Amino acid sequence: MNAYSQLEEKFRTLATIENAAGMLHWDAATMMPPGSAEDRHEQLAVLATIRHEKLSSTETGELLKAALETKSLNTWESANLREMVRLYTHATALDADLVNALSKASNACETRWRTARPDNDFNSLKPLLEEVLSLTREAANAKSEKLNCTPYEALMDQFAPGLQTNMVDILFDRLGRELPELVSEILEHQATLPKTVAPAGPFSVDQQRNLSTRLMAAVGFDFHTGRLDESLHPFSGGTPDDLRITTRYNTDDFMTGLMGVMHETGHALYEKNLPRDWRRQPVGAARGMDIHESQSLLIEMQACRSIEFLTFASPLMQEAFRRAGPEWAPDNLYRVYTNVRPGLIRVDADEVTYPLHVILRYHLEIDLLADNLSIDDLPAAWNDGMTALLNQTPPDNRDGCLQDIHWFDGAFGYFPSYTFGAITAAQLFRAAIGSAPDILQQIQEGNFQPLYDWLRNHIHGNGSLLETPDLIRAATGEDLNADIFIEHIRKRYLARI
Amino acid sequence: MNAYSQLEEKFRTLATIENAAGMLHWDAATMMPPGSAEDRHEQLAVLATIRHEKLSSTETGELLKAALETKSLNTWESANLREMVRLYTHATALDADLVNALSKASNACETRWRTARPDNDFNSLKPLLEEVLSLTREAANAKSEKLNCTPYEALMDQFAPGLQTNMVDILFDRLGRELPELVSEILEHQATLPKTVAPAGPFSVDQQRNLSTRLMAAVGFDFHTGRLDESLHPFSGGTPDDLRITTRYNTDDFMTGLMGVMHETGHALYEKNLPRDWRRQPVGAARGMDIHESQSLLIEMQACRSIEFLTFASPLMQEAFRRAGPEWAPDNLYRVYTNVRPGLIRVDADEVTYPLHVILRYHLEIDLLADNLSIDDLPAAWNDGMTALLNQTPPDNRDGCLQDIHWFDGAFGYFPSYTFGAITAAQLFRAAIGSAPDILQQIQEGNFQPLYDWLRNHIHGNGSLLETPDLIRAATGEDLNADIFIEHIRKRYLARI
Repeated sequence: MNAYSQLEEKFRTLATIENAAGMLHWDAATMMPPGSAEDRHEQLAVLATIRHEKLSSTETGELLKAALETKSLNTWESANLREMVRLYTHATALDADLVNALSKASNACETRWRTARPDNDFNSLKPLLEEVLSLTREAANAKSEKLNCTPYEALMDQFAPGLQTNMVDILFDRLGRELPELVSEILEHQATLPKTVAPAGPFSVDQQRNLSTRLMAAVGFDFHTGRLDESLHPFSGGTPDDLRITTRYNTDDFMTGLMGVMHETGHALYEKNLPRDWRRQPVGAARGMDIHESQSLLIEMQACRSIEFLTFASPLMQEAFRRAGPEWAPDNLYRVYTNVRPGLIRVDADEVTYPLHVILRYHLEIDLLADNLSIDDLPAAWNDGMTALLNQTPPDNRDGCLQDIHWFDGAFGYFPSYTFGAITAAQLFRAAIGSAPDILQQIQEGNFQPLYDWLRNHIHGNGSLLETPDLIRAATGEDLNADIFIEHIRKRYLARI
Repeated sequence: MNAYSQLEEKFRTLATIENAAGMLHWDAATMMPPGSAEDRHEQLAVLATIRHEKLSSTETGELLKAALETKSLNTWESANLREMVRLYTHATALDADLVNALSKASNACETRWRTARPDNDFNSLKPLLEEVLSLTREAANAKSEKLNCTPYEALMDQFAPGLQTNMVDILFDRLGRELPELVSEILEHQATLPKTVAPAGPFSVDQQRNLSTRLMAAVGFDFHTGRLDESLHPFSGGTPDDLRITTRYNTDDFMTGLMGVMHETGHALYEKNLPRDWRRQPVGAARGMDIHESQSLLIEMQACRSIEFLTFASPLMQEAFRRAGPEWAPDNLYRVYTNVRPGLIRVDADEVTYPLHVILRYHLEIDLLADNLSIDDLPAAWNDGMTALLNQTPPDNRDGCLQDIHWFDGAFGYFPSYTFGAITAAQLFRAAIGSAPDILQQIQEGNFQPLYDWLRNHIHGNGSLLETPDLIRAATGEDLNADIFIEHIRKRYLARI
């Protein structure tokens, strides 16, 4: 077997170990009894160690070196090798002590955060966060050397491969400038619209689940290789051939749970339609969290908050909840579920204000990492930023800088993925409609196939063959372009309907 | 770190990999979507391979050699080392090609069996079973050399460590001689008893589940580190700190499901109370499938089919199903649920006829392995044996030699564990009552603690410290003794109640 083939075999094993760990993560969030967390933690740690040892071994390094000299690789194989090198570089950039220290510090900090947030207790987290931050800086520096990029780019690269700071700065500067004005304009516009009536609960969990599965099936989720469950924090997990998505039901408001389901279904469809011939190979994996988020947001925000989707879904909703009345008219539902309202909490934000939450975190984490902002000053900087960007001042840290798990869990560099996902989603959806103009009309008939086909051909089926900018260019004919996102916002939120 | 400590670390990793695989097995039987089996198969195969490589490595062999020369090990450490050697010997006795061939052949045969049984199609299985049998012979011979025992003992050793053929022969000869007569006697006796009335269904699944969890909690199952679910074939899985038991509910007959739950709870209590200081070490594991089965049968047959337990459970049953009437009187329930009726199917058998099913299989598999019985002649030999032992003649192979998965899955040598478990259960229960005479009285009050304490002290907490005969002797003061089982049968089934 030549070096490249040996690498394929090795990376197939690595992906299978990750798949096993993915199932155990899903179980921990959905099924595991409360007292079994430590037991599960041991299992995940052992699998992570085995994976890391195999990935970062001398043997892997030598095989990569040999394979890079191979001339006979085809396009997919070359891209596969490029991704292998990327994974190997990330795995070997840090020495074992640093990996260990970072994992321990993040674990301790995240565990503390779980009680500190409800207790509104930022002070007790400060030394733990300081430790995470300091080790993250060290890791970012080490990785930046190996990856030949800035330390912050090295962190982003773990989630959104190849994302560059200058791209983020250009986009975020623009959105940070334009969105606050746009929000004011939308708020004024909304005030002139006919009064909306939100459907009133209670909505039983069983009814919500039935509606969710029915709409998931309509969108293309295949329950033969997937399931829907409940968890505290909704997520899409499992493997491409065993998709496990979760949601959380609120009996007063079914739409939060339902749109959560549609969001996770978008993630799941991407995983399901990754190139089957490259299962368990790096090139067969999703391109990154930015593209992943574009797929969930495309389904949730672009497709399922459209008037066409709500026209299709309205009778199903009425049937599921055995209700009727003017509040179920598609145009009323549309106005209710595209209502813009600035708030304190990112995960509750509408698509117009969401990027502002991300921009705040981006600037703060850049400053924290560069030591331009001390942890002591973080709460005040957070609150100032919220006031400037969203005209909202958190009454406490619980709904301020303590609200997200990311930093306390060591996931610095993640936030930009959300907004790159949103911008990409708008651009992909416009391109899809450009190529198959009846997509929305078909969705109104309950037929997602045309959209689904376009996504499979232009995004899902490519896996990690192309790097992100090339993938977007190939799918849409142009570079990532925030104009399209802004246009989408203007069109949806400033139109009279 | 000395050799022994290094081995502890290595075997902790091995056990953790097995725990991860155990959770994935549980998921496959309870939660996994139907189309995801192949994906899961890959994960389990990779984990099994990694475990096997680590266990059978040259390094492990060298560490074992060095540790065996250590003089300073305490009793637990020495027993741990003895178990490590046993696991290593089993893992290295077969060369990789044979392991692979056996795994493939068993897989193919078991997969075919799943449709061949309902189709009553023995012929199509013959070549596949021939292949499994021939490879099993080869494996048994290879292991017998390393373990210094007969080939059949080498197979039994995989499930019931140390079980010897002469012990099995002595016990099974006796039971094979005495039980058929005893069954006739019991059938005559039963005919003289007052007519029984079985509680009539339907019993809703929800009500059955509520009753099951209530009685599980009474017996000592801790839902903080365990759960109850449903699966086609009930089992006890998971890990000592994350116990997952399953049952199957029949809406016409709640007792099958409930006694299944009590049976699996017996397994789970054993796992839970294995010595905590030796978690994830070989000496901290259950002693073997024979002792495991003794724990499930002790709870199900000895404790939960007693008049005392049914006196405790009767009002809970009536409350759970919102029923009342003379059929719920404890003595009626007792007669219904200790009814003896010879039948064709092992898994449906009562505790009196069950050993006869096992004895049949034992003799047949000995003959198959020794090539004294051809696969062509198996159906006839099965039917003759059933007629001789149980006076039952299967109308077809579906309810004859096709009924059990074991042989088709390559698990030759497993069956004796069931009956050794039953005999051990009777002996342990009598010893427990000898030492704490109010055990049954307490169970009637819903208090399992005295029984539970005895089991923890005498069985559970020992893990694999003692070899099986020593464990039984230490717990009961004598060697395994079938008299006690026969006495139990006579007392329960020939008494007038």
